[in-house]
Amino acid sequence: MKKVMNKPEDIVKEMLEGMSKAHRRLVEVIPGTQAVVRADAPVMGKVAVITGGGSGHEPAHGGFVGKGMLDAALAGAVFCSPPLSDGIAALERCNGGKGALFIIKNYTGDILLFDMLEEEAQDRDIPVKKVLVTDDVAVEEREGTTGRRGVAGTVFVHKIAGAMADKRAPLEEVHRVAQKCVDSVRTLGVALSPCIVPGRDKPNFELGADEMELGIGIHGEPGVERTSLRPARELVDGMMGRIVGDLPFERGQEVAVMVNGMGATPLMELYVVFNEVAKYLDRTGIDIYRSYVGEYMTSLEMAGFSITLLALDEELKSLLDHPCETPALTQR
Amino acid sequence: MKKVMNKPEDIVKEMLEGMSKAHRRLVEVIPGTQAVVRADAPVMGKVAVITGGGSGHEPAHGGFVGKGMLDAALAGAVFCSPPLSDGIAALERCNGGKGALFIIKNYTGDILLFDMLEEEAQDRDIPVKKVLVTDDVAVEEREGTTGRRGVAGTVFVHKIAGAMADKRAPLEEVHRVAQKCVDSVRTLGVALSPCIVPGRDKPNFELGADEMELGIGIHGEPGVERTSLRPARELVDGMMGRIVGDLPFERGQEVAVMVNGMGATPLMELYVVFNEVAKYLDRTGIDIYRSYVGEYMTSLEMAGFSITLLALDEELKSLLDHPCETPALTQR
Repeated sequence: MKKVMNKPEDIVKEMLEGMSKAHRRLVEVIPGTQAVVRADAPVMGKVAVITGGGSGHEPAHGGFVGKGMLDAALAGAVFCSPPLSDGIAALERCNGGKGALFIIKNYTGDILLFDMLEEEAQDRDIPVKKVLVTDDVAVEEREGTTGRRGVAGTVFVHKIAGAMADKRAPLEEVHRVAQKCVDSVRTLGVALSPCIVPGRDKPNFELGADEMELGIGIHGEPGVERTSLRPARELVDGMMGRIVGDLPFERGQEVAVMVNGMGATPLMELYVVFNEVAKYLDRTGIDIYRSYVGEYMTSLEMAGFSITLLALDEELKSLLDHPCETPALTQR
Repeated sequence: MKKVMNKPEDIVKEMLEGMSKAHRRLVEVIPGTQAVVRADAPVMGKVAVITGGGSGHEPAHGGFVGKGMLDAALAGAVFCSPPLSDGIAALERCNGGKGALFIIKNYTGDILLFDMLEEEAQDRDIPVKKVLVTDDVAVEEREGTTGRRGVAGTVFVHKIAGAMADKRAPLEEVHRVAQKCVDSVRTLGVALSPCIVPGRDKPNFELGADEMELGIGIHGEPGVERTSLRPARELVDGMMGRIVGDLPFERGQEVAVMVNGMGATPLMELYVVFNEVAKYLDRTGIDIYRSYVGEYMTSLEMAGFSITLLALDEELKSLLDHPCETPALTQR
C-alpha cells in the first residue's frame, strides 16, 4: 500500500494544515495544536459540542466541524488518542458560556482523555456532559473488551447533538438527544483488506485473497467472523440481520441509513450495498427516512464498509434535517 | 482487488438503483434506462444540462444531478459510452422548452453518442449546444490520440453551466460560460495502483511495488512518465509546474482548486496533497478562491489523485458560489 505523504511523522499535521486551508471559511486549527475548531468559535450562547480521537478516520472528525455539527474535533496521531493540552485549548476557544458536550467513542484512551478534560472544565467553571458512543454490534459477545466500540454511528451523534446545540438548546437538552441517538443507533462493519499505519512496514492484520472479516473495528481490531468473499446480497442480508435484531428495529420504524466506506472501497460498490440494504428494509417493513452513502468514518486505506441504522422519532428526524455546513457534510 | 457486488454484469444497474433510492428526493433513474435525471424534471423554462459517459467514475456523473448542476447523466457500462436510446429518453424527460447543453468528455465514443443525440434533438426541434472538455494536460505531446482527454475538470463545467442554467439564462449564455470554463481549466493525474473492470481477471495496467505513473487517464490510459514513488511535496511540485505552465496561470490569478481522489486514496492523503498545492500556489502568487478535496471523478478502486485548477473571473466566481444540491455536492 503506497502512501502519498512526506514524512510519516508529519502526516497528521500536514493533513490538518491542508484541511484548514481548503475549508478556511469553516474551520481552523488552533496554532500549536491538532485541534480543529469552527473558524467563528466561540459561538456565544451556544453549547460547545466537542469530540476527538485518533487520526486515520477522515473525514471524522475534523470534517464535521462547522455550523450545525461540531465546535471542535481533537486529532491524535494515527489511531492514538489526542493530548490533553489540545483538549484544553479547544475547550477554552469554543466556550460560548453554555457548557460543553463531549462525544466520546468507547475506547479506553479516549475515555481517559475526556475524563481529564472534564476535570479541567470544572476548574474553569465550564459545565460538561458526556456521551459514550457504543454502536458496534459486533463486539458484545467477546470477552476481555471494554464493551461495544464507537464507530460510524458517532457521525449521527455529531449531527443530532450539533443540531440541538445550533438551536440554542441548553446543555441538558443537547445531552438528552445525544444520548437518545446513542441508544438508537447500531453499526456493523466488514473489512476486505487491512491498512498500514504510516511509517510501519506491515498491515495491521492479514486477510487472504478471497477472505473478508465481519465485525472488524475501525483500527483493525478482530471481528466476529472470517469467511470467504460472498455476493453483496448474501453479505448485506447477514449483516442486516445482526443489526436489525440487535436494537431491535421493529416493523414500521423509520430509520436513517448510513453506508460508510472504510477508505478504499469505491462509491459504486457502496451504492450496490445500499441497494441491498434498501431491499432488506423494504422486505422487513422498516422505512428509510434519510440516507447517507459515502466515506464518513474510515480506517486509512482499508477496503470494506459499515452499515449504520438509526431509529428515528419526530424529534430526531427534525434534528437530522436541520441544516449544517461542514467540510464533509452540508445540508440545505 | 476484491469487489463488493453481485454479478459483474449487474453492477451498474444495481449501483444506479442504490443511488436513486438513497437520494430519491433529488434524482431518479428513468425506468428501462441507465439515465439519472432530476426527480423534478423537466424544469420548465430552464436549459437542460446533460452529460454522460462510462460508469466507474462515481460520483461522476449521476452524483452531480440536481438543482444547480446537471439535469441528466447517462451512465454506460463500466468505461463504455452509454446507448443512444438512454440519451433520447433523458432528452425528452428533461426538455424544459429552452434547449439543452451537452457536456462531453473528449473520448471518441462519447463524442459519437452526443453527435447522434444532437440529431435526435433536431428531429424534435430542441436546440442543442455542445462543449467538449479537454482538461488533461498530460496528453498533448502524445501522438495518435484524439487530443486532450476530459477528466476531473468536467465537474467544474457541470457546476458552472448548471449554475448559469439555474439562473434561467438562455442556451447561448449557458454554452458561453461552459466554454469559458473549458478554456480555463487544467488537470493532471497520477496513479499509484491500477483498477480492475468488474468481471475481468486482470488489472487494466501493471505498476511495480514502488512505482507510480504520472498523467494517467481515468480509464488507465498510459501516462507521460513512470517513476518511483516520491514524497508528496516533490510529486505535487512537479505536477503543479506542468499544470500552471500550461494555461498558463499567472501571478495574481484567482483559482478554484480540486484535489480529486481516484477511488482508493484516503482523504488524509488528499489533504496532504492539497497542503502542498496550497503552498505551491502561495509561492507562485496565485490565490485560492474556493477548494474541493475528495472524490469527484474516480476510476473504480484505482489509487492516486488528480489536481485541477480553474482560472476564475468575477462571473465564474459567482457561478461557482451559486447554491447547488446534488447527491455528491451541496453548497448553501
